[in-house]
Amino acid sequence: MAKKRILSGMRPTGKLHLGHYVGALENWIQLQNEYESFHLIADYHVLTTKLDTSEIYNDSIDMLIDWLAAGLDPQKSPMFRQSQIKEHTELYLIFSMLITAARLERNPTVKDQVRDLNIQNITYGHLGYPVLQTSDILLYKGDAVPVGEDQVPHVEISREIARRFNQQWGEVFPEPEPKLTKFARLPGLDGNAKMSKSLNNAILLSDDEETIKGKLRKAVTDPQKLRKNDPGRPEVCLVFTYHNKFNPEDVDEIADGCRSGALGCVDCKMKCTDGINKFLSPIRDKRHELENNMNYVKDVLADGEGKAKLIADKTMSEVREKMQLG
Amino acid sequence: MAKKRILSGMRPTGKLHLGHYVGALENWIQLQNEYESFHLIADYHVLTTKLDTSEIYNDSIDMLIDWLAAGLDPQKSPMFRQSQIKEHTELYLIFSMLITAARLERNPTVKDQVRDLNIQNITYGHLGYPVLQTSDILLYKGDAVPVGEDQVPHVEISREIARRFNQQWGEVFPEPEPKLTKFARLPGLDGNAKMSKSLNNAILLSDDEETIKGKLRKAVTDPQKLRKNDPGRPEVCLVFTYHNKFNPEDVDEIADGCRSGALGCVDCKMKCTDGINKFLSPIRDKRHELENNMNYVKDVLADGEGKAKLIADKTMSEVREKMQLG
Repeated sequence: MAKKRILSGMRPTGKLHLGHYVGALENWIQLQNEYESFHLIADYHVLTTKLDTSEIYNDSIDMLIDWLAAGLDPQKSPMFRQSQIKEHTELYLIFSMLITAARLERNPTVKDQVRDLNIQNITYGHLGYPVLQTSDILLYKGDAVPVGEDQVPHVEISREIARRFNQQWGEVFPEPEPKLTKFARLPGLDGNAKMSKSLNNAILLSDDEETIKGKLRKAVTDPQKLRKNDPGRPEVCLVFTYHNKFNPEDVDEIADGCRSGALGCVDCKMKCTDGINKFLSPIRDKRHELENNMNYVKDVLADGEGKAKLIADKTMSEVREKMQLG
Repeated sequence: MAKKRILSGMRPTGKLHLGHYVGALENWIQLQNEYESFHLIADYHVLTTKLDTSEIYNDSIDMLIDWLAAGLDPQKSPMFRQSQIKEHTELYLIFSMLITAARLERNPTVKDQVRDLNIQNITYGHLGYPVLQTSDILLYKGDAVPVGEDQVPHVEISREIARRFNQQWGEVFPEPEPKLTKFARLPGLDGNAKMSKSLNNAILLSDDEETIKGKLRKAVTDPQKLRKNDPGRPEVCLVFTYHNKFNPEDVDEIADGCRSGALGCVDCKMKCTDGINKFLSPIRDKRHELENNMNYVKDVLADGEGKAKLIADKTMSEVREKMQLG
């Protein structure tokens, strides 16, 4: 039986951080063996919240390098920029006729964004974000979409649009299933629930050992553990969440040491730094290698865009045939 | 100095009627000598109000034949289907980021449509109609758009979007000017202010002599002129508005005859039928000739689409360069 297909993407915001890895990339890397994977550099989506595009190409390349360094395999998984495949916008237009404006206004994710970003007046394109995302998924006939909990309403919109298209013009699209990631969020170094470059609380996949050491040194810990030998509470400590991820074998020992007061925060953070550096070391090496071989990186993109274009053309031929659009 | 460029289009709803001719086509035919003209078969726009696309190709060809029969010159004026030039949808997406949803909701033309068509819940794409129209115009860098009064707010939206794009990414687009048509509306045979196929009150450019005779026979006239020799009021008579257009040399005589009662409605309608038939006769002949030479018609379309594509590519290259979109 043919492998099922997934479509996953990220907006190109430059170099990735551990939150991206834990929240998405790690999952993608596992899934690429089980599914046929398509990975979208969602550069058009950037425009929903930022019109300055002067760094969009460099940001896209930086993100691609991180994807490759972390382990996405370009042989298995085409990687491509949304803006280079015109068919995304064709489907976006067609799908925009299949959903009401009111339905999009009720979308909780857009509501949250409007609140979080303090947007006075949402643009028409931003309101249509889930419609563009639907075209991203359905252009490649994605059977599943790996998403966090907050993106589930978007996938629901995609399912509705797929259903309406199929009802109106005949069966072309699958109804994509949301595929929830298990460990969706890594908190930031300041204790914020979300790691984010704009909050300046992120560890980048490309940070060097010293940078990570310095960042960890300033990371917040249990505020009740003031002196080295005070007993601490790993369950409220940010650094302990990192241990859980990057020192999984030592977490019991670390938790005991923290609770008893035998392990001070400085040593605990050193251990954490070591764990993260051990994890990042091969990624960093691969990144370095890729940065010295930009022709290869560009080839990966050109190859991915070629493969994506073939599928996109095929889907749009079906769409045009069903719609009798000449 | 280079000719200025206009972009004008119609939705393909099949064969055209005299209302289309008087309201738009006549104007286009005159303008094609003064301007470089691009004529759009706006097939994607049909989706805003009708998802059944089974006749969209035939309707497009029927409209194209009427355009050619009425006198649009394919050498001067490329004619093309919107759906065949993917770049319309690319610009639509980009422009959708440059206008707020609230601005589109305030658009009076959309408000009127929602009321007239009794639309409960406007689709996202319908709300964005003026954004797609903006991409139609600006893709060809239209300096002017021949429109009726009711379309002026749309052109204003196009001007705003052009301005915003140019401010954000540098000068690419002109701010298109609305070019108001003089004689914008021909009433329908039932006296309705608008001639329309769906109201079943239209005279088609392709109607034969007998059909027109029959339609005119049933046309409403001054309700106070009950008998042949009753005095009538040309200023309230529908048929007289047709005389104004199609028997301009005889209107004074006709008005006098009507007022004095010397001219009865039956004879007046015969005169009107003759005037319309005289006007339509060469169009009908040309139509017949074209219907027997469908290869030529298809060539006109292919040629127009080739020319449009060249310009569209050029504009999108500029857009991509300015936006640094790879």
